[in-house]
Amino acid sequence: MKKLFVSSVLMMLALFVNARVVTDSIESKVLSCKVKYNVYLPAGFNKNAPEKYPVLYLLHGFTDTYTAWVMKGRVQEIADELLQTGEMCPMVIIMPNAGGPDTKNTWNGYFNMEGWKYEDFFFNELIPQAEKRYNIVGDRQHRAVSGLSMGGGGSTGYALTHPDMFSSCYLMSAWLESEDNELDPNDKSTYVRHAVHSRSAIDFVSSSSEDIVNKLKTLKWFIDVGDDDFLLSGNIKFYQAMQAKHIPCELRVRNGAHNWEYWHTALRTSLPFATRNFSK
Amino acid sequence: MKKLFVSSVLMMLALFVNARVVTDSIESKVLSCKVKYNVYLPAGFNKNAPEKYPVLYLLHGFTDTYTAWVMKGRVQEIADELLQTGEMCPMVIIMPNAGGPDTKNTWNGYFNMEGWKYEDFFFNELIPQAEKRYNIVGDRQHRAVSGLSMGGGGSTGYALTHPDMFSSCYLMSAWLESEDNELDPNDKSTYVRHAVHSRSAIDFVSSSSEDIVNKLKTLKWFIDVGDDDFLLSGNIKFYQAMQAKHIPCELRVRNGAHNWEYWHTALRTSLPFATRNFSK
Amino acid sequence: MKKLFVSSVLMMLALFVNARVVTDSIESKVLSCKVKYNVYLPAGFNKNAPEKYPVLYLLHGFTDTYTAWVMKGRVQEIADELLQTGEMCPMVIIMPNAGGPDTKNTWNGYFNMEGWKYEDFFFNELIPQAEKRYNIVGDRQHRAVSGLSMGGGGSTGYALTHPDMFSSCYLMSAWLESEDNELDPNDKSTYVRHAVHSRSAIDFVSSSSEDIVNKLKTLKWFIDVGDDDFLLSGNIKFYQAMQAKHIPCELRVRNGAHNWEYWHTALRTSLPFATRNFSK
Amino acid sequence: MKKLFVSSVLMMLALFVNARVVTDSIESKVLSCKVKYNVYLPAGFNKNAPEKYPVLYLLHGFTDTYTAWVMKGRVQEIADELLQTGEMCPMVIIMPNAGGPDTKNTWNGYFNMEGWKYEDFFFNELIPQAEKRYNIVGDRQHRAVSGLSMGGGGSTGYALTHPDMFSSCYLMSAWLESEDNELDPNDKSTYVRHAVHSRSAIDFVSSSSEDIVNKLKTLKWFIDVGDDDFLLSGNIKFYQAMQAKHIPCELRVRNGAHNWEYWHTALRTSLPFATRNFSK
Repeated sequence: MKKLFVSSVLMMLALFVNARVVTDSIESKVLSCKVKYNVYLPAGFNKNAPEKYPVLYLLHGFTDTYTAWVMKGRVQEIADELLQTGEMCPMVIIMPNAGGPDTKNTWNGYFNMEGWKYEDFFFNELIPQAEKRYNIVGDRQHRAVSGLSMGGGGSTGYALTHPDMFSSCYLMSAWLESEDNELDPNDKSTYVRHAVHSRSAIDFVSSSSEDIVNKLKTLKWFIDVGDDDFLLSGNIKFYQAMQAKHIPCELRVRNGAHNWEYWHTALRTSLPFATRNFSK
Repeated sequence: MKKLFVSSVLMMLALFVNARVVTDSIESKVLSCKVKYNVYLPAGFNKNAPEKYPVLYLLHGFTDTYTAWVMKGRVQEIADELLQTGEMCPMVIIMPNAGGPDTKNTWNGYFNMEGWKYEDFFFNELIPQAEKRYNIVGDRQHRAVSGLSMGGGGSTGYALTHPDMFSSCYLMSAWLESEDNELDPNDKSTYVRHAVHSRSAIDFVSSSSEDIVNKLKTLKWFIDVGDDDFLLSGNIKFYQAMQAKHIPCELRVRNGAHNWEYWHTALRTSLPFATRNFSK
Repeated sequence: MKKLFVSSVLMMLALFVNARVVTDSIESKVLSCKVKYNVYLPAGFNKNAPEKYPVLYLLHGFTDTYTAWVMKGRVQEIADELLQTGEMCPMVIIMPNAGGPDTKNTWNGYFNMEGWKYEDFFFNELIPQAEKRYNIVGDRQHRAVSGLSMGGGGSTGYALTHPDMFSSCYLMSAWLESEDNELDPNDKSTYVRHAVHSRSAIDFVSSSSEDIVNKLKTLKWFIDVGDDDFLLSGNIKFYQAMQAKHIPCELRVRNGAHNWEYWHTALRTSLPFATRNFSK
Repeated sequence: MKKLFVSSVLMMLALFVNARVVTDSIESKVLSCKVKYNVYLPAGFNKNAPEKYPVLYLLHGFTDTYTAWVMKGRVQEIADELLQTGEMCPMVIIMPNAGGPDTKNTWNGYFNMEGWKYEDFFFNELIPQAEKRYNIVGDRQHRAVSGLSMGGGGSTGYALTHPDMFSSCYLMSAWLESEDNELDPNDKSTYVRHAVHSRSAIDFVSSSSEDIVNKLKTLKWFIDVGDDDFLLSGNIKFYQAMQAKHIPCELRVRNGAHNWEYWHTALRTSLPFATRNFSK
């Protein structure tokens, strides 16, 4: 066992270096800027493999950037571990940028706003490029969406209005409603609040026609929110709206607040959930 | 190791036989009948020990009896295990009878009703007898209450109206409100629904004076309810009422419905919770 | 909401009655007796469905019978719940009889012994009949084996010697070795100990040829044993033997001993494990 | 709710800024250098409070420094959360430096070595200064030790040889033995391996006199190690040595390897464990 301990440590570092999170970007015509995104590639990923990969879009929160899930959320360590035990299947995880800390002067948000048509960008530019570059199947049965806080609201908004695009949607501490709807042209953060106000997930479900409701039933839904989260109430209302329309939806209120400790453990549930709901 | 396997099995059976759940009873003047109760005694229990024990009152649900927590809930196996790891402290658990399966002709319920003054029985007869017989400390800092469904509602009702009697209250899938308030003298089950209606936990909290609110803040509260439980909505309303009054309260919505699988796992959380909130 | 509570309770009882555990039996020529087995059928089971079901063989322990997993292990409640959340796929679970409490006069055990050729019965009679009757796929990629204590040892012995028959094997507190090898013709329990002695899982792996090792690598293995289990040591030795031969194998040592509380929670892990390792 | 979302985010940032991890240091005469240590102070910490605090010494691993538990292990977020739920009691956590990444030229290790008498420093300099500065009770019943990898081995070594100093010891992926015992004066890393070799925890327990064994029984022990950890085998041997001497000891083998994902979750168990074993 001579030097075994040191060798093992070095080997772990080597594994770490080989790890597969890459940063990519897209020149968006819609947004008139370059948008970065991080990509998690499962061990053994092969760009030219005959069998293509399912994909999860994993969205960050307000004031954060595309690096948050990797740096603060430890997505790689957790995904590698779940992959090794088989709880998660090999999948590509796309983590696009949709914000930044200077919320007055930087756009934040996943919805279309005046001057920031992010939803158009997401569906018309990001999805096509990413799915082509990373050998992704590219149908709804192999595409899932999830996110935290503002990204949880974005996930929900995307899944509600594009139910034919996703097999499942996992909400982490999601921001689903806002009372703020005043716009201040000098403060971009007012635009995201206004957008969340206009796109209330609760109102959307409550006012859905039977036809829409039937489409929403074809996705799997999972709400995960802490009992000390200041957004708990909106999540409960969304759950109740889903129940009133008889749309199956899982709900978990675990111990915790609006922070990375919560999302770190939420990720361990969301990746197997996406896996179970990809087509076999 | 000859015969070791067989010996071990026999030893386990022996432990099982030595296990300490006893059935006791009380001749109630208030209820004009004999009321049975099961008592869990921790390993090494000594009726004459100089150091007295804390106590948990653990209440069964509608249509069940005092045997439910022992037979269906496996209280002994779980308590023994938690005691051995130190997650639970040595405590006595009292499981009184408050119902039966023939709900038309058998009284069910923990509140005072016309003809069934159970709450008077509980506080004036049961507590004094049990705490004397089983070497219990007998103050609020060493007394907790918990229960499932109708027993969760009973626990809550007791803790709300006797906040000076308990250090903590743990609700499992609690029945906290009812719209039914018609009484049918030929159907005793209408009396319990009427009582739950009159004693709505949500209304009680919402209409509490500042003085009452301050008293309710001296207890520790924990709500545990499944996302597929038909009583979820009432529990959420109770949580929101507590929040509106700034009374600290834990909330967990775990996967599950209104059944023993849920309460079995809830018990593993409730016993350490009671322990942590007994005085040191 | 009039009568809602009572209706809900009745509805739950109805669901309970509709639940699908059936008792079947087989007239064994090999054993010269009738052998009973319980069968868990997933909700919506259809004997004539075009899509056939995967199967798990779930084996009971020493002194127990085919009823143990249903009555003590709550297999139906747990499987129904995991099925509903998608953590388990629809599968048939076969729980055959291989013992009884009077171990002196009743045969116990899953291996071939003089007078009790159970392994022959299992592979030549039970599997063919059960898989035909219950619309089971019937290939290795849709067949798993698991069991507790003596049944954990049986599962392991079956998977080690028939690696072409199972996709995965999950050991719960498994009995994998015995020092006892004396036979007393007047005490049938000596025969099972002798058989476990002869079929030591540790020795089998340690002395396996490269060819056998390669076959054992095609199954997924999972060892689950409590830190206070008197069989812990044998399970550790088995894990170390597997590691020495580089056969991938999961190991969990959780808090607990050799009892139903442990197996109850083990079942919640084993059913998703079998599911993940069935072919897609 | 105008601006509520933004206000809440700002409030959380404020809480973060108020958080209480301080960096302190000690001029060690024993080591002839300044040694830094991080200190976690529970919310509401008061240096002059009449009621003093219990303390946990939390030790980092090989190649790491005193910052590891804070930066990589998120000790503050986890401790704050457990404190808020009551699973952990208010305690001070001391995280001293005992290493660095350049292992050839930097001392690593918790034992006394030629030129690095860390154990003398720990007991004669660090404990007295820290316990005085941070209002710590300072007796064995209010002092616990824990650590990961090299720090797990250090914790174990300290608790084995100073059983009168600690109420509990929690090992995370502990480094308990080494076959390396050659010293290279030009490579300080050989000294720590040599020290671990000389201080084998397994040999210490196996060769303990009845008197020492009785002292070791007065502590609470908890071993936590992943099934894919390259140090698993040593931990199992240590557990078996403890069992052979009938010294009560918890064992958990969870899913995982030798990495921060494992220690992150281990910390959630170790803090309540230390709490339960402080005197009441």
